Amino acid sequence: MSQDTRSRSARSSDAAGTEVDFVLFGALGDLSQRKLYPALYHLERENLLATSTRLLGVARQEENLDSFKSRVESALKQYVPSEELDRASLKRFLDRLDYRCLDATQPEGYAGIREWRQDAGERPMAIYLAVGASLYGDICRHLQDSGSLDERSRVVVEKPIGYDLTSSAEINDAIGAVFPESRIYRIDHYLGKETVQNLIALRFANPLFGTQWNQNHISHVEITVAEKVGIEGRWGYFDQAGQLRDMVQNHLLQLICLIAMDPPANLDADAIRDEKVKVLKALKPFTDDMLGRDVVRGQYIAGTSDGVSVPGYLEEADANTESHTETFVAMKTEVSNWRWAGVPFYLRTGKRMPEKLSQIVIHFRQQPHYIFDPDQRALASNKLVIRLQPDEGIALQVLTKDSGLDKGMRLRPGPLHLDFNSAFAKTRIPDAYERLLLEVMKGQQYLFVRRDEVEHAWHWCDSLINAWRNRDEMPRRYPAGSWGPVASIAMITQDGRSWYEDY
Amino acid sequence: MSQDTRSRSARSSDAAGTEVDFVLFGALGDLSQRKLYPALYHLERENLLATSTRLLGVARQEENLDSFKSRVESALKQYVPSEELDRASLKRFLDRLDYRCLDATQPEGYAGIREWRQDAGERPMAIYLAVGASLYGDICRHLQDSGSLDERSRVVVEKPIGYDLTSSAEINDAIGAVFPESRIYRIDHYLGKETVQNLIALRFANPLFGTQWNQNHISHVEITVAEKVGIEGRWGYFDQAGQLRDMVQNHLLQLICLIAMDPPANLDADAIRDEKVKVLKALKPFTDDMLGRDVVRGQYIAGTSDGVSVPGYLEEADANTESHTETFVAMKTEVSNWRWAGVPFYLRTGKRMPEKLSQIVIHFRQQPHYIFDPDQRALASNKLVIRLQPDEGIALQVLTKDSGLDKGMRLRPGPLHLDFNSAFAKTRIPDAYERLLLEVMKGQQYLFVRRDEVEHAWHWCDSLINAWRNRDEMPRRYPAGSWGPVASIAMITQDGRSWYEDY
Repeated sequence: MSQDTRSRSARSSDAAGTEVDFVLFGALGDLSQRKLYPALYHLERENLLATSTRLLGVARQEENLDSFKSRVESALKQYVPSEELDRASLKRFLDRLDYRCLDATQPEGYAGIREWRQDAGERPMAIYLAVGASLYGDICRHLQDSGSLDERSRVVVEKPIGYDLTSSAEINDAIGAVFPESRIYRIDHYLGKETVQNLIALRFANPLFGTQWNQNHISHVEITVAEKVGIEGRWGYFDQAGQLRDMVQNHLLQLICLIAMDPPANLDADAIRDEKVKVLKALKPFTDDMLGRDVVRGQYIAGTSDGVSVPGYLEEADANTESHTETFVAMKTEVSNWRWAGVPFYLRTGKRMPEKLSQIVIHFRQQPHYIFDPDQRALASNKLVIRLQPDEGIALQVLTKDSGLDKGMRLRPGPLHLDFNSAFAKTRIPDAYERLLLEVMKGQQYLFVRRDEVEHAWHWCDSLINAWRNRDEMPRRYPAGSWGPVASIAMITQDGRSWYEDY
Repeated sequence: MSQDTRSRSARSSDAAGTEVDFVLFGALGDLSQRKLYPALYHLERENLLATSTRLLGVARQEENLDSFKSRVESALKQYVPSEELDRASLKRFLDRLDYRCLDATQPEGYAGIREWRQDAGERPMAIYLAVGASLYGDICRHLQDSGSLDERSRVVVEKPIGYDLTSSAEINDAIGAVFPESRIYRIDHYLGKETVQNLIALRFANPLFGTQWNQNHISHVEITVAEKVGIEGRWGYFDQAGQLRDMVQNHLLQLICLIAMDPPANLDADAIRDEKVKVLKALKPFTDDMLGRDVVRGQYIAGTSDGVSVPGYLEEADANTESHTETFVAMKTEVSNWRWAGVPFYLRTGKRMPEKLSQIVIHFRQQPHYIFDPDQRALASNKLVIRLQPDEGIALQVLTKDSGLDKGMRLRPGPLHLDFNSAFAKTRIPDAYERLLLEVMKGQQYLFVRRDEVEHAWHWCDSLINAWRNRDEMPRRYPAGSWGPVASIAMITQDGRSWYEDY
């Protein structure tokens, strides 16, 4: 682990006006259009880009600056709500743009980047690699060889970083040969979500939760990341990965880390990430008896989505009809340490679920003694529901007395809602990429994934994938538009619990 | 303590249709008109009065039934919102009424009550004494002597029961000579408020609060019962009592009991009241050094209320200008037991405050370690705000991350509101007297004050009153429309705290 530069703290808020030049590889790609230009535009609009900051788009395609600008402009018109797209901000943003055509695998074109940077003065450069991970090594090396980098240049990379521990280590080695860990920003966009960051505030600024955040007080934790969509035309890519690699290895494990980590001594990036790594290392290893009982693989078959018939995974365009790749995973795992021993973490994630829903439910233990109506006993616990999608928000379920006169001391579950959309009605919730790009500019790494996090996550997932392969485990079928295989329900029901579905 | 009949539990909800006959002494008085008829009418309207239930009004004045009914009808028209006053319910209610003229101090008239009850069958009788406590003994004795009572008759009495321990014991002795404790219902209308009963649900059905409800997790408790009004034409009566006897001895001490009591083993009336008595017995006795520092007596002088000039206490109609009676008390006390040792309970109650406000604020301790912006440190604790007046509701203050992009990890206090008026929008919040009269019909005593509660409360208040008298302590002046004497602010400020005024 390279920690050669002490990373800065998450605490201070000296954001506005941090000078940086962005170089964006994959400037004509899907991620850039859908996420990065809109995010940078919003930073522009909120005056969070320094006056001198410039943005160089880089892609293989010949393109003159005007046509590049008009491509960016149409992307913004498509992905930014029209009421947020004002002419002045748009003009300021487009004026920052430049473009270079470049074959990333060949050294020749990189001189153009060095040349573009000649009058950059003190501004550091942030290189955003919105391209496949197979190109990361080449790009880093060529950037270095061309003399484009200095000791303040930062690189931003997207998942997936490899498809197992070995391949991820190779990619990280190649990046690490050029950039020290303190200047590598690995994106997991879940970490940019307001509600995910709010886990840190909820846990460490609220004694009411902080003091109960352990196995004495929490009975179990649920994490659901349900996608409504199916494969969306990327069957070949997805089939190489599967849901475990695509969603669990990164997003779900990051959520577990933030839920389960011990309190960091401060908000420095490495203080936080040291604690996250401890969680990943404490994840219970898979054993054979767990596989049969505590892990469910699924693959969707034909069904309905919003009342419309949709094909099964093996009937999608480009499908290999023999594929055993999972489109759903549910599992019961545990963080085997002093804080969490004995507290199940139930995870599930899948495609073609009935709705798009990402939420964490913290179930607090029941009281040791119960004095209200016996038939309401099951009500008597508290839940903290942290919803990431579709509407970010937090709700605490508490029990109060039913106010009906004829109800005696009957209980009534009443959620105390903290809904960002209503509570802070005037405040737009920033997209994850806005927050993340801002942190790159500020040189703050606490929302980015450190190399050892990636590798411990792979280590754990690899062991499950290997076990599946050794047992030749077939995925269980579930109809599109359902909550996954029946076995996923059974997995939690056997513990006398159920997946939380109200909000 | 008479506990000859095992009192029933608060749990079951077999309310509707419990047969009982009400006999109401003081049937033409203020309490009856403002509170009791409206409450009984609402029970009627919600079909919570049994078909056979009847109501006998008793007062000294000659009155025929028709004119009594029209008095009751005008009281309802005055005190029930017109949209809740429907003709059918009103007719059903008036049809239950009867009236007897009777001098309560003389035995002669009581035969009329026995006669009225002749065809009552199995219905028990509930006698509501909405008259001065000096009459309680006579009424009970004459009822018994006239043969009007049986072994199921209940008596309901209002505060104030005496003005110190001795006088209260005399009154309770007189009632107790006729009724066993299990059939005496001492009203403290605060116990009928939804939010006050909700303390039981909040504490014992919510492990999140229940497990933290002690000196390990709670730093201090505030109780404010502020009246906006002054003396309202009852100077002579009030001046004999003062704010301590008028408000603290009953309402505030009842609130402390419900906040501080250990969990009862079940919801039986005596299980709850046993725990409340333990709290009263554990109240820290007053010592001389406390008097100077931890207790503030106040008396209002002229000032303004809602921008209008109002007279001081000594300038009110009928005032004795030499009076030293307090119209405000603030104190810092403690429940000296294992659960609460070291946790200050700050109380204040007064007349001519800036607004009408009754609320309890539970302040949870700060986290042992703090990692956010140093200037926000004071924010970092949780508060549970339980408001009884003007709008009943519960709010939990939690800290979340400020969602502004330029805010880094700045915190933001966001209340999670559980407002009965909005959360259960369709449900009218019943008035305290509706709940209490219903419990009388059901024969359930958990919302009524047991004799030993009254007496321990007097014992504690008496010791303070005696100390004031021995020191000849003068009340401090405060202008009408202020939050009491400056010394009340100083009392809490000396502990580095302040009275909570936001909601």
